[in-house]
Amino acid sequence: MNLRDGYIAVDWGTTNRRAYRIDGTGMLVNDFSDDLGVKAVPDGGFEAAVAEIRTKLGDLPMLMAGMVGSNRGWFEAPYIQCPAGIEALTHAILWAEPGRTGIVPGVSQRGAAGADVMRGEEVQVIGAIADGSAPPEGLICHPGTHAKWIVTADARITAFRTMMTGEMFALLSEHSILAEQLTGDAQPGAAFEAGVNEALCGGDVLSGLFRIRARYLLGESKGDEVSYASGLLIGSDVRAGLLLDGAGSITLLGRLDLCELYAIAIGKAGRETRAVDGAAAFLTGIRCVAETL
Amino acid sequence: MNLRDGYIAVDWGTTNRRAYRIDGTGMLVNDFSDDLGVKAVPDGGFEAAVAEIRTKLGDLPMLMAGMVGSNRGWFEAPYIQCPAGIEALTHAILWAEPGRTGIVPGVSQRGAAGADVMRGEEVQVIGAIADGSAPPEGLICHPGTHAKWIVTADARITAFRTMMTGEMFALLSEHSILAEQLTGDAQPGAAFEAGVNEALCGGDVLSGLFRIRARYLLGESKGDEVSYASGLLIGSDVRAGLLLDGAGSITLLGRLDLCELYAIAIGKAGRETRAVDGAAAFLTGIRCVAETL
Repeated sequence: MNLRDGYIAVDWGTTNRRAYRIDGTGMLVNDFSDDLGVKAVPDGGFEAAVAEIRTKLGDLPMLMAGMVGSNRGWFEAPYIQCPAGIEALTHAILWAEPGRTGIVPGVSQRGAAGADVMRGEEVQVIGAIADGSAPPEGLICHPGTHAKWIVTADARITAFRTMMTGEMFALLSEHSILAEQLTGDAQPGAAFEAGVNEALCGGDVLSGLFRIRARYLLGESKGDEVSYASGLLIGSDVRAGLLLDGAGSITLLGRLDLCELYAIAIGKAGRETRAVDGAAAFLTGIRCVAETL
Repeated sequence: MNLRDGYIAVDWGTTNRRAYRIDGTGMLVNDFSDDLGVKAVPDGGFEAAVAEIRTKLGDLPMLMAGMVGSNRGWFEAPYIQCPAGIEALTHAILWAEPGRTGIVPGVSQRGAAGADVMRGEEVQVIGAIADGSAPPEGLICHPGTHAKWIVTADARITAFRTMMTGEMFALLSEHSILAEQLTGDAQPGAAFEAGVNEALCGGDVLSGLFRIRARYLLGESKGDEVSYASGLLIGSDVRAGLLLDGAGSITLLGRLDLCELYAIAIGKAGRETRAVDGAAAFLTGIRCVAETL
């Protein structure tokens, strides 16, 4: 790939996309994000959506990752299997236009470890390891709608597990009997920590959630039930995720507000964390891919 | 209460109601059910909805239980606190018309055991114990939208725990990323048992659920994913519920199709069960209340 004049990197998810222009020296010079996620692109509309990115950021080579390569995206870029590192990812790029517009594939896991898939997180993982913000061997937690716990060794993804934590929280907030109590965003504090502690001690999430309803009916609501519910779900997520790797500091990778909540929960479980901004790691990961081409 | 000419018993829930006419000898002579649950009754419409029952079943004394006594029902019948038995329930009946139209209250739990509430199940519990289908001291499981595990002693409800198991299953089937794979009803069989086993062994529900999505994307779907999902949720429910009482046979009380699934899961956890039809227990419970008045 000719990087002399720079390139465009696009993190294209289900509900939004973020595009960056990198110049020939590797500096970020322009970027934008909008809500034209994969779900919002009409049938046959990807060519126009990609052209719009070049209109805004320049007529440059482009590398994309995320749901744009899924069966609901532009072209389906088949998953590569674990263990997966930079070489395998780069080798499997699906070229919409050869050498000019490429989609980085996702990663899959099969067999005894349990079927699992990711799209987009793998680029962040590669980037975080490449710039030294995550060690080449360790445990990475990527919070989100479908939170991922990722085991790495030798700078490759060797195993991972996805939890429907964020989606479950959204289902409860939007559609459940708890919806009227689960308003606003979860915040660090006593209510969040109470939920985390309950889950880390083995408390059952399905009964912990109903207690929110019971406290409301009995006039015992603590006010910050949204943070308590978040604590219950994140605590349960952390309890299961930590089983993947028994020791060492954990890299939190993703949205920094979510990383903050996970850091509290992981700390209560007795493990150390370091937080890495997902957007920065994505840019490093895409640069590694571009330079490997 | 004058039972000489019989009475009407109504189990009035959120989404439907079921009404029974009992004659002076205690025999069930007529009944109907419809979808005029509490949510479907318009503001100020309860008098008419109650009159309609008498039009269909006769101008008799009436005892009701369930969500009709909630803050979304006809009149709010304040919860009585655990431990709760037949005397306390009867004493706390809320009379819409004195001696003629009464609402049996629900039961609440406060304090260290955790806030919790029930409305309707308490009548079934009292009835099942009264007719000998449940022992006066033991553990009762009442599956449903909000599944309940109920500890009894001396024919009274001493503690209980509600799990949002059924509601969670509905949220996943109707609104989640898994909706297109979770169609139809869960059935006993290998897929259900696989989910149960995973949950009983401590498997994490949030990751087990996402594997349904991953198997679909990787072409590894087992076909009966709805039963697997049900097994995961019910297995998790049973694992937590059994902690309330460590030994002895468990009474399953409620809808017999759900009781069958729970019996499989409880059996896999090494405990015996007996199933009791919830509608029959409800009628016995209301008769006990009527005779105590």
